[in-house]
Amino acid sequence: MTVLVVGSVALDSVETPFGRADDALGGSATYFAASASHHTPVQLVGVVGNDYPMDKLRVLEARGVDLSGLEQADGESFRWRGRYRHDLNSAETLETRLGVFSHFRPKIPAQFKRAKYVFLGNIDPRLQIEVLSQVDKPKLVACDTMNFWIESRRDDLIQLLGKVDLITLNDAEARQLTGEANLVRAARWIMARGPKTVVIKKGEHGAFMFHADRVFFAPAYPLDSVFDPTGAGDSFAGGFMGYLAKTDDLSEANLRRAVVYGSVMGSFVVEGFSITRLLEIGSDDIARRVAEFHRLVSVDALV
Amino acid sequence: MTVLVVGSVALDSVETPFGRADDALGGSATYFAASASHHTPVQLVGVVGNDYPMDKLRVLEARGVDLSGLEQADGESFRWRGRYRHDLNSAETLETRLGVFSHFRPKIPAQFKRAKYVFLGNIDPRLQIEVLSQVDKPKLVACDTMNFWIESRRDDLIQLLGKVDLITLNDAEARQLTGEANLVRAARWIMARGPKTVVIKKGEHGAFMFHADRVFFAPAYPLDSVFDPTGAGDSFAGGFMGYLAKTDDLSEANLRRAVVYGSVMGSFVVEGFSITRLLEIGSDDIARRVAEFHRLVSVDALV
Repeated sequence: MTVLVVGSVALDSVETPFGRADDALGGSATYFAASASHHTPVQLVGVVGNDYPMDKLRVLEARGVDLSGLEQADGESFRWRGRYRHDLNSAETLETRLGVFSHFRPKIPAQFKRAKYVFLGNIDPRLQIEVLSQVDKPKLVACDTMNFWIESRRDDLIQLLGKVDLITLNDAEARQLTGEANLVRAARWIMARGPKTVVIKKGEHGAFMFHADRVFFAPAYPLDSVFDPTGAGDSFAGGFMGYLAKTDDLSEANLRRAVVYGSVMGSFVVEGFSITRLLEIGSDDIARRVAEFHRLVSVDALV
Repeated sequence: MTVLVVGSVALDSVETPFGRADDALGGSATYFAASASHHTPVQLVGVVGNDYPMDKLRVLEARGVDLSGLEQADGESFRWRGRYRHDLNSAETLETRLGVFSHFRPKIPAQFKRAKYVFLGNIDPRLQIEVLSQVDKPKLVACDTMNFWIESRRDDLIQLLGKVDLITLNDAEARQLTGEANLVRAARWIMARGPKTVVIKKGEHGAFMFHADRVFFAPAYPLDSVFDPTGAGDSFAGGFMGYLAKTDDLSEANLRRAVVYGSVMGSFVVEGFSITRLLEIGSDDIARRVAEFHRLVSVDALV
């Protein structure tokens, strides 16, 4: 099955203790697509300015990402500039220039409208709702969000919750959205407003998936060198949704496997700047790390 | 097998958003013993002042904790007063009064010297080394430590590393001790100085165990109400060491199971003040949560 992603396509300039990159491919939809395309075909909807290095995106097309929903508008592309300090735990935003992204109104091309798996990347919840009005009965709709929308578009975001099957968000966002410091209670709060499944990403501390009255936990794969954490959450979402779309199986057992694939894809992207590592790896690398993940958590004969 | 613990026996006064406790049973050895005693007999070595409510410790004796190595000295008992804010992530120390603990010189009673499992709780590394000179060929020696000793007794602590099989410490301590922000590298640094096994506790984010070239991860069991985090690390260590001593099996598979038991015991203690919950629960409760833990992490047919 194909997965449709709507989100940002940006140019990122990032400094880490290990180096810097300028105007590298970035944005939630870019990371998502680069990750998901390892598992299943991807349809991308977004906007860039006429300054965007479109040739650099061709590598995504070669990987099965359909860019016919990527609008090129007059003006500057969305640019983000950030810095990570030694502990790599949180980005410090130095500059955000929305450019053409500030007027983004997603238009879903006719040939994308029947996508069965839809991921609403982190954009204005009003636009996320608009996207849903343009697609035909998807089998699974998932969304992401961020602190900015939780503050500025709270009512719209809560309306969106009633329309999605699944939400991915990080622990700080879950706490901010729900007012609950405890993540179990935060997940319950969110599920009471719509989503049957809540995935709470904790960065280097792994991810919880709450589904019905069950909870699943997957650690982040422990790496001995993390190079650039940018895009880890979107690559997680890409691996998760890509695996679900590929297998087209929404059982709890398969959702758990999808979390592992998300975690594995997130562990690759942080090994290099931008989507570099996602373009280098192949199915063997993914299979090997999934097997390592299994060894990381396995305990036999517990009881 | 019996497990010997040397550490602090204190009186804790704790404030959390949910209430407060004054002069409650506390200290690393107390939490360790209350936890380990669910699995195996415990021998405790420590010191208290003549103001200590010895009658309250009798419950531990009834649970198989041998207190004949608990010295009662003239003076005040070790008292710690702390507060947790809403997120419960870190304690703010309001007052520490070492009392008789500042002159503690552990004396291992003759009948404890042949303990096969020894846990050196978080005390001066010089004293931890002194304890080792008093015991006969234990099968497993584990130690804990804290930021204070990493700063003030670094050389002694590194000497201690050469004498222990296993160390438990939290992520901040591992980073402080090794100068490595990355925990995989931090564990490698520690293992190069002696311990074959390194357990890095991350509080609510679970625990890593590094053993030879393998790594195991166990999440903290997700609770919907955490009441008081005090003693979680020592209760983890008690569950871990207690299970190892009970099963007397140091294979990697069994070390992994021990981490799970540690995690489960840590999840109980935070549900109440002091050691209250550890005194309430029974083997059924433990078995149930171990089974829940298994469901929390299980993924089938990953590859």
